Amino acid sequence: MSEVPLHGGDPSVLRRLNAANTLRALRDGGGAPTVTELAAEVGVSRPTAESALAELAARGLVEEVAPDTGRRLGRPARRYRFRAEAGHALGMEIDAHRVLLYVADLDGRVLGDHRADLEVDAGPRERLAAVRAAVKDLLAGLQLERSALWAVGAGTPGVIDSSGRVIRCTVVPGWEGVDLARELGRSFPCPVLVENDANLAAVAERWRGVARDTDDVVYFLAGMHTGVGAVIGGRLHRGRWGAAGEVGMLPELGLTHTSATLAGDTDPAEGGGRPDVVTERTARRVLEAARGGDAEARRLLEGLAARMARGIAAMVLALDPEMVVIGGTLTEAGDLLVTRLREHVRPLCLSPTRIETSALGDESVGLGALRAALDRIEADMFRLDAVTVG
Amino acid sequence: MSEVPLHGGDPSVLRRLNAANTLRALRDGGGAPTVTELAAEVGVSRPTAESALAELAARGLVEEVAPDTGRRLGRPARRYRFRAEAGHALGMEIDAHRVLLYVADLDGRVLGDHRADLEVDAGPRERLAAVRAAVKDLLAGLQLERSALWAVGAGTPGVIDSSGRVIRCTVVPGWEGVDLARELGRSFPCPVLVENDANLAAVAERWRGVARDTDDVVYFLAGMHTGVGAVIGGRLHRGRWGAAGEVGMLPELGLTHTSATLAGDTDPAEGGGRPDVVTERTARRVLEAARGGDAEARRLLEGLAARMARGIAAMVLALDPEMVVIGGTLTEAGDLLVTRLREHVRPLCLSPTRIETSALGDESVGLGALRAALDRIEADMFRLDAVTVG
Repeated sequence: MSEVPLHGGDPSVLRRLNAANTLRALRDGGGAPTVTELAAEVGVSRPTAESALAELAARGLVEEVAPDTGRRLGRPARRYRFRAEAGHALGMEIDAHRVLLYVADLDGRVLGDHRADLEVDAGPRERLAAVRAAVKDLLAGLQLERSALWAVGAGTPGVIDSSGRVIRCTVVPGWEGVDLARELGRSFPCPVLVENDANLAAVAERWRGVARDTDDVVYFLAGMHTGVGAVIGGRLHRGRWGAAGEVGMLPELGLTHTSATLAGDTDPAEGGGRPDVVTERTARRVLEAARGGDAEARRLLEGLAARMARGIAAMVLALDPEMVVIGGTLTEAGDLLVTRLREHVRPLCLSPTRIETSALGDESVGLGALRAALDRIEADMFRLDAVTVG
Repeated sequence: MSEVPLHGGDPSVLRRLNAANTLRALRDGGGAPTVTELAAEVGVSRPTAESALAELAARGLVEEVAPDTGRRLGRPARRYRFRAEAGHALGMEIDAHRVLLYVADLDGRVLGDHRADLEVDAGPRERLAAVRAAVKDLLAGLQLERSALWAVGAGTPGVIDSSGRVIRCTVVPGWEGVDLARELGRSFPCPVLVENDANLAAVAERWRGVARDTDDVVYFLAGMHTGVGAVIGGRLHRGRWGAAGEVGMLPELGLTHTSATLAGDTDPAEGGGRPDVVTERTARRVLEAARGGDAEARRLLEGLAARMARGIAAMVLALDPEMVVIGGTLTEAGDLLVTRLREHVRPLCLSPTRIETSALGDESVGLGALRAALDRIEADMFRLDAVTVG
């Protein structure tokens, strides 16, 4: 059923509709149009465009640009631009080993980023303190006040409920049960959104990665385990309880112990360090050896590809997406795993779904978190029932 | 990002918007309001409401009702109603064994239905001829001209592409490759939509069945094999190539040979008849015996439930839906299979997804086809860029 907005004749709704349309035209147009040009673009009268511009200027979203003097006689027409610097979005990835941060303006232009290592064994309190310190460093470097942030997005492993609480997490010690949206919310005067990391990676690949112009995409974040995120019909699909994509729960679908499968029967204690860190390191070495043609490494890679292919096929058969994107630590050094996965997945499926390597590498989760924050800001900026930002 | 319609000041678009809103208010309100009541409901002026009503009356969608005389002095105010009888929708299920038809008015009220057995071994030509004969019978019984139909929906087993062609079908002999939308289109002067049967069953359960008010629902049509359909975010999810839900392709997910698993190692030749018909019959007998407490039948039922549970869990883990609905021939005699499935699926999943028996039984596919036809009519009826029906 097509949706028709029932705004009827309410003048304040019409005024907001005109302001929203004017803002969108200014932002998406990119240039610095005159009132006449804007009015034509939006399809309203000149006085209506003028009053919309006045309202947007009062909200700090629009400004008059300096006139282009000396080009011709007479007073030059006034020109206006969208103030992308009026507000900012912060996106972050928090995982077991590190935090990765991005700040962008309202156009989504990344102004700065920051990485900090996290102690794998750290408890939630220490982890959150390290995240706060990293945010402080990044904002100081950009000379931005905390109040300049209009929304914050955060991605982390695990099942996240709709309020931003970590319901289930096997990767980050002590993370399960942490109300991450509330904890982070204490540091920011703006909305904080928390989402599963693979979900945000899917969003990022669609925004700036290999899945641009793709409305249905499934992302596999291949590391210690393989997380799954899906964008369906252009929207992130979280599921009723935030647990969509957890097909790893079925062991026959081969998405758990991804790195360990590649590492083979290496003794985790070998070489010292935490077992999972050793496993990750070994898995990378095996990938490297396979690339060099080592027969045993190739056998291990083939085993992993055959195993993961069941889980990838299950998601492809369930959703019939246009594209599958494989990212995470096991794809950072090249296409080798993805090449083998293509061979193993295709015979299991009905459709010619493309299988691609992530274009964003280890930036996908943080950029997806940034996109989520920008989406929230835009939803507020363009909503018609109330003006809530600026 | 929120969507704002950029209709600007185009008077013809505003006129259509007012007409669409007036039509929606009349249809959804159900009563026979006066112009004044309608204008208030829609939020437009009285003259605007009057001109919208005139346009809708000219299109045959609205009429003035006989005045309610004798109640008070003076000329009674004119009242208007939506003409649900202005057009009709036809929904049909075509499977290996039968065709099932429904005709409804524009309010979705079913005016008549019709069933006819189909020869399992019939080729596409005979099958389509039998479908056409059944449609003729139903329309004759309702004294409806073919031109009274504004849209036709059809559900059938298999993978159906977006143009309505059967891409893959293992259930109906010779069906693969048939351009069903085109074949049926020859018989009707209106749009014909063709969709996978389990997809339409999901739509129907959400419309009139056990999944009302549920935006995310996965439907399992359990028969010879188990087909899967999903509504995500309130919309049918077809997938890029129409193949969403085909998790039965992975044998470890236990959705193929459903009836055969329940029938055990019965010799298909036993008792005579086509092997699949015998298998279905035996499967029903086993269910009956299990209900009566027969130990061997219970063992077979338990085996089927454990097997199917992997496929149901895979879909639940992939999508995290609010509800799973189980329908098809194996659920028509009661809740026994579903009760056992609940036990087997729950331990495999993370979320408390409800698992329910279909409320519509063997009517779900045909009613879903009817709903698809009604959706098409509504999309035309309420669209703003052009008037295409009436």
